[in-house]
Amino acid sequence: MTDTSGLPFASFLRTRRAEIDRALDAFLPPVSGRLAGVHDAMRYSLFAGGKRFRPILALAAAESAAPGDPAALDLALPSACAIEMIHTYSLVHDDLPAMDDDTMRRGKPTLHVVCGEGLAILAGDGLLAEAFVLLAREPDCEGRPERAARKLAVIRRIADAAGAAGMVGGQAIDLQAAGRGCDAEGLDAEGLRDMHARKTGALIRAAAASGAIMAGAAPARLEAIDGYAAALGLAFQIVDDILDVEGTDAALGKTAGKDAASAKPTYPALFGLDASKRLARDAAGDAHAALAGAGLERTRLADIITWVLSRTS
Amino acid sequence: MTDTSGLPFASFLRTRRAEIDRALDAFLPPVSGRLAGVHDAMRYSLFAGGKRFRPILALAAAESAAPGDPAALDLALPSACAIEMIHTYSLVHDDLPAMDDDTMRRGKPTLHVVCGEGLAILAGDGLLAEAFVLLAREPDCEGRPERAARKLAVIRRIADAAGAAGMVGGQAIDLQAAGRGCDAEGLDAEGLRDMHARKTGALIRAAAASGAIMAGAAPARLEAIDGYAAALGLAFQIVDDILDVEGTDAALGKTAGKDAASAKPTYPALFGLDASKRLARDAAGDAHAALAGAGLERTRLADIITWVLSRTS
Repeated sequence: MTDTSGLPFASFLRTRRAEIDRALDAFLPPVSGRLAGVHDAMRYSLFAGGKRFRPILALAAAESAAPGDPAALDLALPSACAIEMIHTYSLVHDDLPAMDDDTMRRGKPTLHVVCGEGLAILAGDGLLAEAFVLLAREPDCEGRPERAARKLAVIRRIADAAGAAGMVGGQAIDLQAAGRGCDAEGLDAEGLRDMHARKTGALIRAAAASGAIMAGAAPARLEAIDGYAAALGLAFQIVDDILDVEGTDAALGKTAGKDAASAKPTYPALFGLDASKRLARDAAGDAHAALAGAGLERTRLADIITWVLSRTS
Repeated sequence: MTDTSGLPFASFLRTRRAEIDRALDAFLPPVSGRLAGVHDAMRYSLFAGGKRFRPILALAAAESAAPGDPAALDLALPSACAIEMIHTYSLVHDDLPAMDDDTMRRGKPTLHVVCGEGLAILAGDGLLAEAFVLLAREPDCEGRPERAARKLAVIRRIADAAGAAGMVGGQAIDLQAAGRGCDAEGLDAEGLRDMHARKTGALIRAAAASGAIMAGAAPARLEAIDGYAAALGLAFQIVDDILDVEGTDAALGKTAGKDAASAKPTYPALFGLDASKRLARDAAGDAHAALAGAGLERTRLADIITWVLSRTS
């Protein structure tokens, strides 16, 4: 992968995004034969113009954990891509009529609008399962017990983040809080934080941890990067909630104001806009502090905090 | 686990089923706190009275691959349970209105009937993700590189079987053949066989292979067990199609005759009932031959062929 150390942040992002897109294209099954329908559906959502925030974070964590080691990036690339596949599956399922019922995403019709609910459910299932195919397959660990041990640790973190205590649990809380599940209930501040920690925070933490682990980070450095990612994930989610209030449909590529219209629990709804912005800055401050504590304050991980705070989509 | 070597087949099945149920109960997250809704939904489907065919097959393969080694069964139990979780997730999603639209399964209302489509989709997602949590977590491989290598091989086989070329691909072909997907098309005999090999065959093969691999089967024995399982899976699916024609709602615990009513591609629809029964017996014969070729004709794996051919539900 490209040495981006001298590049401005925007060029770094562009370079990594192109590398991740190429890797995803190579990892995904080609569109062919009887399976063309579902393969095509998986690719439609995976290449719909995502920011690639999670895999970029994973690669930046790998680079920061093992600076100057070009192999670290190659080792971290498969799990970085697997995480983007899991993120995409969660969007496809969250957009379904039985969930958030969204018809636009990243400026394009959502998958179930394009090819029906049945195939959209299956394409989501396929992206989740193929993420584990990729994790199990690459990088090759034949005769390399240390690498195999790292990989098993990464698979465990990613599966935990995707599972019933992670993303699935967070989306279930969200569904119930919006009054559409079995057991509707309101959410207080602690409940909102818990929901977001599961729904978006867990996979963001797993992304950073996976990069650090594959790069062979020592336990203390891994712990610092994990603490950074927990704070970063919180900032990311608060900004997401704020953008739903302040953003435009055009910039977001989806319908703004949807959270309030569906009475979803959000930071602005619970704390107001000003306090939400302060909370996002506080979380960003915690992320910077976690990096500084491990001597990582001059890495791409710090730039990523600024990116998260200043994004408009 | 219990030494069942002296037991009649019915007692062997009962014993293993109870052990698998206990293990699944211990592996699954407990129903508690904010996540009670989705945990409860996952458990509803997982403990709805399944035959436990796949995990029983996995354990029988482990026992046959390493006869007299009690550790083999313990090593194979987590992946056996993970496969049952993946099988259950696939039933939950296949039953959804956007897929097969089934309201009864194993004599009980299907999950989406009980708690809504949103939570049913999430519970399915949760079962799939938790299967990989379990695979990554157990058995413990810390400091045991050989066991870690076996586990990675098993994760890969299971993920492949669940993925876009396996179960998900098979269900997508089924959906399209029933004219509800993006690209409807009829299926000929080769197409039907291919669909079933993906939709049900792949996970049945992965079950047998996972048990054999965790038990440390030599390559030739693993290959024989895999060939056996491929033939067994075909017999299983043909019998399934026949039962949909000849079975009763009460015995099946679901609506019989549903395949024909929805013009699904099946063996009886394509070949007629008599030829289908002959094809099932032929596949069973192939399974016996694969065992005999590896000196495994006097194991539980042979009894399982008879079970598959004679089942009424």
